[in-house]
Amino acid sequence: MQKIYLSWGEYERRFDRLRRYLEEKKLDAALVTSGTSIFYLTGFNHLVTERPAALLVPIGGEPQFLGPLLEVDHLKLKTPLIKEVRTYLDYPGVKHPMELFSDWIKESGLGKAKIGTDNLAGAAGTSGYTGQSLSEKLKDAKLSNIGAVFWEWRLIKSSEELELIRESAKWGNLAHQYLQDFTEPGLWDVEVSQMATLEATRAMKKTLGMSWESTKGGSPCSAGFRGQIGWKSAIPHSIGINCVIKEGDVLVTGAGADIGGYGSELERTMIVGKPTQKQRKLFDIMVKAQDAAIGILKPGVTCADVDKAANRVFHEAGVDVLVRHHAGHGIGLQGHEPPYLDQGNPQKLQPGMVISIEPGIYELGYAGFRHSDTLAITEDGYESITYYPRDLEYLTIT
Amino acid sequence: MQKIYLSWGEYERRFDRLRRYLEEKKLDAALVTSGTSIFYLTGFNHLVTERPAALLVPIGGEPQFLGPLLEVDHLKLKTPLIKEVRTYLDYPGVKHPMELFSDWIKESGLGKAKIGTDNLAGAAGTSGYTGQSLSEKLKDAKLSNIGAVFWEWRLIKSSEELELIRESAKWGNLAHQYLQDFTEPGLWDVEVSQMATLEATRAMKKTLGMSWESTKGGSPCSAGFRGQIGWKSAIPHSIGINCVIKEGDVLVTGAGADIGGYGSELERTMIVGKPTQKQRKLFDIMVKAQDAAIGILKPGVTCADVDKAANRVFHEAGVDVLVRHHAGHGIGLQGHEPPYLDQGNPQKLQPGMVISIEPGIYELGYAGFRHSDTLAITEDGYESITYYPRDLEYLTIT
Repeated sequence: MQKIYLSWGEYERRFDRLRRYLEEKKLDAALVTSGTSIFYLTGFNHLVTERPAALLVPIGGEPQFLGPLLEVDHLKLKTPLIKEVRTYLDYPGVKHPMELFSDWIKESGLGKAKIGTDNLAGAAGTSGYTGQSLSEKLKDAKLSNIGAVFWEWRLIKSSEELELIRESAKWGNLAHQYLQDFTEPGLWDVEVSQMATLEATRAMKKTLGMSWESTKGGSPCSAGFRGQIGWKSAIPHSIGINCVIKEGDVLVTGAGADIGGYGSELERTMIVGKPTQKQRKLFDIMVKAQDAAIGILKPGVTCADVDKAANRVFHEAGVDVLVRHHAGHGIGLQGHEPPYLDQGNPQKLQPGMVISIEPGIYELGYAGFRHSDTLAITEDGYESITYYPRDLEYLTIT
Repeated sequence: MQKIYLSWGEYERRFDRLRRYLEEKKLDAALVTSGTSIFYLTGFNHLVTERPAALLVPIGGEPQFLGPLLEVDHLKLKTPLIKEVRTYLDYPGVKHPMELFSDWIKESGLGKAKIGTDNLAGAAGTSGYTGQSLSEKLKDAKLSNIGAVFWEWRLIKSSEELELIRESAKWGNLAHQYLQDFTEPGLWDVEVSQMATLEATRAMKKTLGMSWESTKGGSPCSAGFRGQIGWKSAIPHSIGINCVIKEGDVLVTGAGADIGGYGSELERTMIVGKPTQKQRKLFDIMVKAQDAAIGILKPGVTCADVDKAANRVFHEAGVDVLVRHHAGHGIGLQGHEPPYLDQGNPQKLQPGMVISIEPGIYELGYAGFRHSDTLAITEDGYESITYYPRDLEYLTIT
């Protein structure tokens, strides 16, 4: 059977690890408010809104979900790992949710406990949420911040996580191929993106079948330009969508897919019509920089080394002034996560890290050039997870 | 000319208001880190990532953008209101951005100033960002939290903001009409959503023309089901996307559009095939509850009154146990914002507030029923902004 979700055993191992961590740190419980961390532990993902939600994990007891009523049926459907729930009708409520959280924690015998949390306020606090902080309400308890530990654990992907990221790359590849196939002068960028996304989604769902489900509510897979069309390709996070594609344009793309909550990153520089000499030159420099950064990937190499390897190519080619960002970032449950492949980051690469490599150069008023690939660090080097062609011949739209 | 952006005068009035507020509170400067609040003040929207970004507004000086290099060309393109920028290459950098923010604030003569901020850490802190907090770095300055003031100002929409929200509702209406037109048994939910989104986006772009641009990077307009198909319609935030639409299904939809960063909310309950007696009964109760909540809207009525008006209908019909959330929420730059129309919220409605009204009932294992409309509070009552038909005859898919 195709692998499109983590096993429940994987989630149980995460809970075990959390309990071992609590023991080691002499904490009585964990209180987790980040939507992504709750998903990481339980397989249950929810829309994070103004309504506070948290997972309370007593070191020796059953985990409890504290949150809005509207998530309870959803939670029961999505995870067998949380059997106890305590809910309020809605925010701000006749009694404020943080009053209730405080009561519930006391009722669970944790009113004077040492609690590790990712958020001393007790709530994600989005969308104009206001409320007294949980640490003020629980004056006899001792709350400490353990949020960093989830980022640390997420740094190294398990073999199951890697399988999902590889599967994600396949459907990102298909979406990107449709994007390239559908790109032609005269069409709006967004039209091409949505056509490619629709066709790739259809194929992905029909291939993976009924059991595939989005965990995040977005498109199953997608491809697009994120505003980087023509001279706007020089703006890395342009985001605006309003261009008609023209002959001579440089396009910077992006594609990915959601498999069990995990993603991958595939970005390419495409050129509409016969590339000019200048386009070809900048494209080649960018590919050389990406090759240089990829070429040194292995355990023990630092994030700074990787960024510097790319920057050396740009420097030698005399285009340092066109650099606008570092060489890449971690990827997994979120599109950007540690480690950051930055000249200032001494962190060492380790087997199981999954990263993007995407050095870019951007000449304002002219064009930008960037490929991004997803790679995993292995025991003795790296594995390329994305595999879309990187050469200019393939990426020329004729 | 069609109105699809705020005027620069509107942004300038917001800056003036911020300066008056600083004066009143005896503060020397504001430091704003929320991406939405920076957009609210300047018209410049950026992807919020691990890279810290902030707007520094000295009470008597030019506003300065402090942030990553990759946003600078973007910012210059999008707003004439920020002329001074200070940038770092990337995060975490050879020198950490929070070190630089601290240096820059001192260089601006604000090292010992009273600074109002929406974030004492100095950074939005997403995607695994770590760093010392700005308030620790600026030991001689006095930082205080003024984040709530932006939410307060956003509560009451100006006439320009209302115009954009009305325009958004038009394109949400078109997307929803296509969604209804394309819905048929045997199709995947996501396929129908993406087909409707593509057709409506094409029409919207061709109508509004080249000057229309997404400020957020999402689809110009869209419609979909967010997982609420068949028995899953009973899960308000189901989000999972994996269903084939079948005869007899209850569907709960959603549609909207981005006009100058502003949105609207339109949701409908549709039934595939001839409605059963039970479906008709629950549908009618839901519409009656929505009518009751809408019927009392005017200045001075409290948010609690509105929620209670809907709940009274549910209580009288004997379906209180099917309620999963309150009657609605504010809407504007974000999909959810204050005021929250909740039985526990004594806040009074005021002219210029824009809200959703969407009481719902949900029977687990069977179906959910919810319409959502966007309305504005006027001097003597309310204005319906969304206008899609609400009756079962229209919403039956045959």
